[in-house]
Amino acid sequence: MFTLHHHPANPFSRKARIVLAENGLEFTLIEEEPWKRPPAFLALNPAGEIPVLEEPSGRALCGHRPVCEYIAEITSRPLMGYDAFERAEVRRLCDWFDEKFYKEVTLYLAGEKIFKRLWNGGAPDSTFLRAGKQNMTGHLNYTEWLLKHRKWLASETFSMADISAAAQLSVLDYVGEVPWDKTDENGQPLYEETKNWYARIKSRPSFKPLLADRLANLVPAPHYTNLDF
Amino acid sequence: MFTLHHHPANPFSRKARIVLAENGLEFTLIEEEPWKRPPAFLALNPAGEIPVLEEPSGRALCGHRPVCEYIAEITSRPLMGYDAFERAEVRRLCDWFDEKFYKEVTLYLAGEKIFKRLWNGGAPDSTFLRAGKQNMTGHLNYTEWLLKHRKWLASETFSMADISAAAQLSVLDYVGEVPWDKTDENGQPLYEETKNWYARIKSRPSFKPLLADRLANLVPAPHYTNLDF
Repeated sequence: MFTLHHHPANPFSRKARIVLAENGLEFTLIEEEPWKRPPAFLALNPAGEIPVLEEPSGRALCGHRPVCEYIAEITSRPLMGYDAFERAEVRRLCDWFDEKFYKEVTLYLAGEKIFKRLWNGGAPDSTFLRAGKQNMTGHLNYTEWLLKHRKWLASETFSMADISAAAQLSVLDYVGEVPWDKTDENGQPLYEETKNWYARIKSRPSFKPLLADRLANLVPAPHYTNLDF
Repeated sequence: MFTLHHHPANPFSRKARIVLAENGLEFTLIEEEPWKRPPAFLALNPAGEIPVLEEPSGRALCGHRPVCEYIAEITSRPLMGYDAFERAEVRRLCDWFDEKFYKEVTLYLAGEKIFKRLWNGGAPDSTFLRAGKQNMTGHLNYTEWLLKHRKWLASETFSMADISAAAQLSVLDYVGEVPWDKTDENGQPLYEETKNWYARIKSRPSFKPLLADRLANLVPAPHYTNLDF
C-alpha cells in the first residue's frame, strides 16, 4: 500500500491522486499543512513541498513530477505518451500547466480565495483576482486552440498533460473561478471545447474522490460536483 | 544535426548544451533574446522560453525539461539514473535546482547582475543581492551534506541532477557570486565538497564551451575559466 502526503487544495497533490487512481494503485492519504513547516514533514521532504509518496517499503519520493513520472514508469498505463517525441510534448504541456498556469492563474485566484486563508487567514485582494482572471483568458484560449486540433491536450490519447491541467482547473472550479459559460459579443460560447474536455475528465472514476473533497469553511461552487455542469 | 535556441546567460540553456555534449550529439546554436518577445521565436515556443531544440527533421521540442528528458531517452547515457527510484531522486534534485535554487538564488544574484542588464538595462539592487547571498548559504549547505553522503548529487554516478545544479552555479560563477572559499570562524572551508564536485564538472569536455562564452560588456570573474580555482 502506498501513502500519499497531500493537501486537498493543492493542485499538485490532486495531480498525484489522479495518476495513482488512473493506474489502479491503492493508497492512503495523509493531509499535510506544509506552510506550517512541520518538522516531521520537512524530514520527509527538505523542500517542504507536497505531494510526497511513500512506497510500501517506506522509501519516500518527493515532488509531483518525480512522483508522477515514477508511477508512470512502474505501471503499464502510457500516461506519458507513446514515443520520445510525444513524451516531450506531454512534458511541455505538463510544465505549461504546472508552472506557467500555476504562477499566472492558480496562485492569483486560488491563492487569494483559498491558499491565503490557509496560510495566514488573509482576505482576497481584488487586484490579484483581476490579474488572475485576465491571465486565465489567455490560457483558456490556448486550451481551446489545442482541443480544436487534438482530442486531448497533448495528443489523441489521454495523458499526464490532461491530468496536470485538470488538477489546476479543479481547484479553481471549487471556488467558481472558471468562466465555463463565457460568450463573445455574438453570444457564442468561448470555451466550449475546454468545457467538454473537462466534463470528460470529471466523469472519470479517478476524478471522483477529488469532487468529494471539502475544504474547511469553504463551500464549493454549486456546479463543482455536477458532471453535466 | 540538431539546432538549439539558447542564450549564454540562461542556466536552462546551459543545462541543455551540457546534456547534448555529454551524449556526443552535434548541434548548432542560435542565440535568442526571448524577453524581447520576437514573433518567430514565439511561433516556435508559445511559452516564450528557452531552450528550444529543433530535431534534424525540423520538429521543435520546447523547454529544458522536455528537451533534456528527450535527449536522455534517445541516447544510451543513463543520465536520469539506473532504476525508477533513482530516477525519482534525480528528478527531485533537478527540480530542486531548476526551480527552488533558480527562484531563491539565481533570480536574485544573476537576476540583478546579468538578466536585469539584458532585460531593461537596470542597475543591481543591493537588497536583492543580499537576499540571494543569504539564500545561497542554505543551498550550499545542502550540496555539502549531499556530497558528504554521495559521490555525485543524486547517487554514485554523474546524472542530470549534477548538470542542473552546475548549470545554475556556472551562471553565478561568471559574475563571481559563488563563495567557494568561505570559511567558518575557525578558518575551516565551508564548501570544500561542493568546490571539488564543481571542479570535477568544470573539467568535463561537455563544460568547456560554456567556459568560453562571453556576455557583452561583462567580463567574467578571474577564476571563471580556471579548472584549479
